[in-house]
Amino acid sequence: MSWKSKVRRVDPYTAGEQPKDPTVIKLNTNECPYPPSPSVAKALKELSEPGTYEKNRLYPDMDASELVNALAAKYDVDPEQIFVGVGSDDVLSMSFLTFFTNGKPVLFPDVTYSFYPVWASLYRIPYALIPLKDDFSLDTERFVNHGPAAGSAELGCMDENGEEHPFTVRSSEDLGGIVFPNPNAPTGLELPIEETEKIIASNPDCAVIVDEAYVDFGGTSVLPLLRKYDNLLVVQTFSKSRAMAGARIGFAIGNRELIRCLKDVKFSFNSYTLNMEAIKIGTAAAGDDAYLQKITSQIIATRENFKGELRKLGFTFPDSHTNFVFAKPPADKITARELFQKLREHKIIVRYFDKPRTDEYLRITIGTDEQMKAVTKALREILGE
Amino acid sequence: MSWKSKVRRVDPYTAGEQPKDPTVIKLNTNECPYPPSPSVAKALKELSEPGTYEKNRLYPDMDASELVNALAAKYDVDPEQIFVGVGSDDVLSMSFLTFFTNGKPVLFPDVTYSFYPVWASLYRIPYALIPLKDDFSLDTERFVNHGPAAGSAELGCMDENGEEHPFTVRSSEDLGGIVFPNPNAPTGLELPIEETEKIIASNPDCAVIVDEAYVDFGGTSVLPLLRKYDNLLVVQTFSKSRAMAGARIGFAIGNRELIRCLKDVKFSFNSYTLNMEAIKIGTAAAGDDAYLQKITSQIIATRENFKGELRKLGFTFPDSHTNFVFAKPPADKITARELFQKLREHKIIVRYFDKPRTDEYLRITIGTDEQMKAVTKALREILGE
Repeated sequence: MSWKSKVRRVDPYTAGEQPKDPTVIKLNTNECPYPPSPSVAKALKELSEPGTYEKNRLYPDMDASELVNALAAKYDVDPEQIFVGVGSDDVLSMSFLTFFTNGKPVLFPDVTYSFYPVWASLYRIPYALIPLKDDFSLDTERFVNHGPAAGSAELGCMDENGEEHPFTVRSSEDLGGIVFPNPNAPTGLELPIEETEKIIASNPDCAVIVDEAYVDFGGTSVLPLLRKYDNLLVVQTFSKSRAMAGARIGFAIGNRELIRCLKDVKFSFNSYTLNMEAIKIGTAAAGDDAYLQKITSQIIATRENFKGELRKLGFTFPDSHTNFVFAKPPADKITARELFQKLREHKIIVRYFDKPRTDEYLRITIGTDEQMKAVTKALREILGE
Repeated sequence: MSWKSKVRRVDPYTAGEQPKDPTVIKLNTNECPYPPSPSVAKALKELSEPGTYEKNRLYPDMDASELVNALAAKYDVDPEQIFVGVGSDDVLSMSFLTFFTNGKPVLFPDVTYSFYPVWASLYRIPYALIPLKDDFSLDTERFVNHGPAAGSAELGCMDENGEEHPFTVRSSEDLGGIVFPNPNAPTGLELPIEETEKIIASNPDCAVIVDEAYVDFGGTSVLPLLRKYDNLLVVQTFSKSRAMAGARIGFAIGNRELIRCLKDVKFSFNSYTLNMEAIKIGTAAAGDDAYLQKITSQIIATRENFKGELRKLGFTFPDSHTNFVFAKPPADKITARELFQKLREHKIIVRYFDKPRTDEYLRITIGTDEQMKAVTKALREILGE
């Protein structure tokens, strides 16, 4: 015996690698190829000045009011409808802890953000994986039709140890909650807002979390639905479209009561999370909508171009509404795994998920036009065109 | 029914208030009255410059290697012995989650940092409160003598619902773990290192976490004991002695294996927490030992002076080794609660804990000499001297 027998056993997460070689084209973690808004540089300069940097001696504003107010103005909601955290991972994890506490299973897609099952296991929340359809679209029916009128949905539900148990859902009372990204990752596919609304409307007795990490790249946000539904929580991030993964800022928008619950749980066990620097530079970025439009439009244009090149090379892919493409190379020429390796040899790093349903695809982040031209050139060489 | 039935119920934490009025003397949250090292201002300036601020587009270094290396140099340990987090709250909370998983009770003092029972409940860890002695010193015997030779300790152990159950401890195998601050908060008292060593040595089968948030104000760190014991984790923070509560940086030092476990758990569910800014300014501050010595020496001198004034006014207090004094006003003249209110009227905010054993005391943070003179003057007026 020793202290070692009491340690939590986990499967460590494998993050996308962060190469040090500056000549590598890094398209593996869906970062933005452009810098953040120039207002961020200005805010950092101000933070360094006498009269300001000294304030680091004080605890930061636990409500991050400056940032919250800037986001409220941008999204035209009340500041009390906004919760901020250390990246959307922190916001999502806190939401699991806050809303999914009745011991019943939480539903999410089988192919989705890899942290959902991790948080569920960590907080001992049972969950049921709802398979995407063959075309990778969300199987809306299976999130909607568990009402008594429609019969009950039979699910396999996993406990915290990953063991499966049968579970019957007659209505959303029988659920812990629902969470899915829209557009989904790593597929890039968007669920039309009418379909998302069906899921929210038919599950009034549980929270429905829509993770919109990638929505700014041409997707349609469900934020307008907040006026109709009190069970909807929308989560977004500064890490992708605002080019600020390094600053760790995420946020949730929902009705006041939902947000109050999130804040109560957060403040009950970790009051101060966003540092003074994140609050300041987040506020600066949130106010620069023109820059957000500019860089996301550019990325969308580059993506659509790149899709054309991929099609010419025989790739197939779900129609991405994100800053990445989930692409399957022509099977007669090369496997995804081989292509991943070959691209590495060309100093291009993309993401390969060696798991059922995703192992024939590569997730390629959209970089600058120049970077995507280099990728296209490398693909042509590798495929021998 | 609605989503509301599935929400976690918590007692929201009441943080020390953060008054906006700049004329208020704020001595309620143990912040440092001096600014952080000038190297922090320099680092922030560098962060704002072209070539650097752009890096916010990338995820931060998940290992925070720069900061870890600076801390390793300062504390003369291997970088692999260091874990960093978003304030020591994050580090402590992660340590609970990592080390206290065997379903057996964790021991900590009854009068101590208020988040210990909160994290225990949150993660469903049973715990037993070990009463401090009447003089507020830690009852070492009750953390040490549960070996078979010494008979067993009968404890009341609380489950996550706050319900008490009897529990017998024959050895540290029967424990989940041990955690206590040294010096303790809010008492300010330090346990001599020989006593702390007894606790660590007699509990080889569980992790012993020594929370040294206040050690830099004249306390003796147990860091040298790391060479002898593999079950010791030492937690410190930048929020107090480094005057950087606003930057949210905490760290733990332990043997490589212990730290590896912490990292595995952290990376399994939230990879990126410290932002790029915290890493940079933390690194700058960690390297400025001369400044740390300068401001902590000043605070110690001010504290010792203030203790003299308090004694003259008839206050009693445990002998603080921290940046605060936990002081009991002369009972024939005023209660702690009344004094708290009277000080507010003098625009001086201190901390009052309205709980058994602590409700006759005020926790007064040590500010500048000037601030403490103003406090002494106000106390004289209030007590009618």
